[in-house]
Amino acid sequence: MSIEILRLGHRLHRDYRITTHCGLVARAFGATKMYYSGFEDDKITLNLHKVNDSWGGNFEVQYLKNWRSFLKQSKLDGSFIILCTMYGENLPDVEQEIKSIKNNSNIIIVIGSEKIPSDLLHLSTLNVAISNQPHSEVAALAIILDRIFSGKQLSIQFDKARLKIVPKKQGKKVIYDL
Amino acid sequence: MSIEILRLGHRLHRDYRITTHCGLVARAFGATKMYYSGFEDDKITLNLHKVNDSWGGNFEVQYLKNWRSFLKQSKLDGSFIILCTMYGENLPDVEQEIKSIKNNSNIIIVIGSEKIPSDLLHLSTLNVAISNQPHSEVAALAIILDRIFSGKQLSIQFDKARLKIVPKKQGKKVIYDL
Repeated sequence: MSIEILRLGHRLHRDYRITTHCGLVARAFGATKMYYSGFEDDKITLNLHKVNDSWGGNFEVQYLKNWRSFLKQSKLDGSFIILCTMYGENLPDVEQEIKSIKNNSNIIIVIGSEKIPSDLLHLSTLNVAISNQPHSEVAALAIILDRIFSGKQLSIQFDKARLKIVPKKQGKKVIYDL
Repeated sequence: MSIEILRLGHRLHRDYRITTHCGLVARAFGATKMYYSGFEDDKITLNLHKVNDSWGGNFEVQYLKNWRSFLKQSKLDGSFIILCTMYGENLPDVEQEIKSIKNNSNIIIVIGSEKIPSDLLHLSTLNVAISNQPHSEVAALAIILDRIFSGKQLSIQFDKARLKIVPKKQGKKVIYDL
């Protein structure tokens, strides 16, 4: 199973930190790539690649000019498109459906910034609310990845890491330059 | 069980959206209050109270000038203090300990912004890493609340809501002025 993220409607400056947090969560929780639309922002890509350099893995970032044609084509190619929206079916009610997505599938998780365009609600395979309350696309992404990986994403070991934390009850222990 | 959040080191402008997302997740996922330290920022409080007005509940926000004395006193009073830090024990290894916190306990979940002061690692009851990878305090908060509530936080019904979403497979349905 491969998992990619599409972060919609990135705005320069205003969304920089939230989009970066989305990318960090996507990488840390086992997605392979984040696409983003809106404004192109090299700082996002640069920062997430720096995280790869230090903490390992090959997480990719790509700007998309036309997310609609990308999603339409991905759906034709058999990708399972999960849109996180507070208007969708609540996660506990579709968890089994998510868990039964075939192992060899490509999943694209779509998260918004501002309002979700309403045609997107019909373009996706599944519209999932991570609770029907307003909160955060960062949190929504974390929880949906947690359900897909059944918590195992918390223990991913990344290849080619130069920094590695040794978990401790108290204090900090980091191994450098493995 | 009552759960409160302490968001450390809020910086004006720079942290506005991330701190707001932390508050939104805290509210949506069943915490009763967010304390924050750093710079006082009335916009944070105002915005989260507006969310209460529309979506219900009594989520509170309070600025703390001295978080150290607050945490020390809370610990003396019997609160269980969970610090989210990537240097701590990984969540899967302490999940049972978290689940065995007594039902009548007060839990304070501490999340950082910039670097966590190292004395805090010794002040907390439990230092938990939501994976030992860099990602986001918003995601860390969402996952820890998810584990404490065993997923039930996704279905909280809030009192006095003026807006309520009717979950739908496709489209949007909102009931106003209940």
